[in-house]
Amino acid sequence: MPDWIEQELAKRSEVYPTLDSRVALVVEFSRLNIEHKTGGPFAAGVFELASGRLVSLGVNRVVASCVSSAHAEFTALSLAQQRLGSFDLGGPGLPDHELVVNWRPCAMCFGAVIWSGVRSLALAGSGSAVEEITGFDEGPLVDDWIGELNNRGIKVADNLAREAACEVFRAFRDSNQLVYNARRG
Amino acid sequence: MPDWIEQELAKRSEVYPTLDSRVALVVEFSRLNIEHKTGGPFAAGVFELASGRLVSLGVNRVVASCVSSAHAEFTALSLAQQRLGSFDLGGPGLPDHELVVNWRPCAMCFGAVIWSGVRSLALAGSGSAVEEITGFDEGPLVDDWIGELNNRGIKVADNLAREAACEVFRAFRDSNQLVYNARRG
Repeated sequence: MPDWIEQELAKRSEVYPTLDSRVALVVEFSRLNIEHKTGGPFAAGVFELASGRLVSLGVNRVVASCVSSAHAEFTALSLAQQRLGSFDLGGPGLPDHELVVNWRPCAMCFGAVIWSGVRSLALAGSGSAVEEITGFDEGPLVDDWIGELNNRGIKVADNLAREAACEVFRAFRDSNQLVYNARRG
Repeated sequence: MPDWIEQELAKRSEVYPTLDSRVALVVEFSRLNIEHKTGGPFAAGVFELASGRLVSLGVNRVVASCVSSAHAEFTALSLAQQRLGSFDLGGPGLPDHELVVNWRPCAMCFGAVIWSGVRSLALAGSGSAVEEITGFDEGPLVDDWIGELNNRGIKVADNLAREAACEVFRAFRDSNQLVYNARRG
């Protein structure tokens, strides 16, 4: 993660009791990531579901790391798992965890959520707006993606800050930063 | 990656001209990964499509790394991208690349293939056999997963060594090593 993440987090609370405050934090860091030009317009946080304690915050780092899977969900989930010493965030002895993202995960990150062990997924928004505004190809998802998560014990809350998230996507589009879709490589 | 990978690779060719030889290498390393007890029964290789030069070989490292996304496809693709200094294996100035796996990617790794920039995906096999034998939950995939890859410029070759791959899955099942599905955590 870039240095500014820890610097910005040091100015803020370690605990986010409400869902709105968790989503607001994540949307703000998606904006900071494009302002710092350190990656795409995406951020994700892992929180303890009940207490709201922030366990990890990740941003998109594809270009900087030379790794196409370094999406915000991946960086946040991997950081949380390494900090807690468990590849399963729903494993024995751990509190329930929630992943909060500034948009619905792409096809890859959707699968990553299933493997991660989180018990809740909270989203600023979902649907084609991200692709229409930014030009990213988010990949194909099964129609009943919410049901597939529910069937695996993961609750989903959507549309928590749709307009704020889209504002960041428009700022990203207007900043003329790189939109990397491999198929156009 | 565990030390034995480089030691085993040092005994072998650096170039695999035929598709059969590429798949055989990957299936063999999936077997070695469970024999060494260094991860799940999965291996993946990135090859230069035309020459067959091996760029990277990865195995499943979920348990060892405490990261649920450390699937073989991820380790192989990330290693290749870092070695080539590009988040896009189909990027300008690079030869076409092929990802070879000992089974169809899970929901997460399917998305990772799209983002990676490979132009070809070659599989020992696909379908529910892996779940039936091992108990892993591979997640939901769109029905026309091959068409979705083709539409993004990625060719797919399937069923190249189905029985050999299933033999490794049976050996994994019989070894009583950990099957980690987050929803059962």
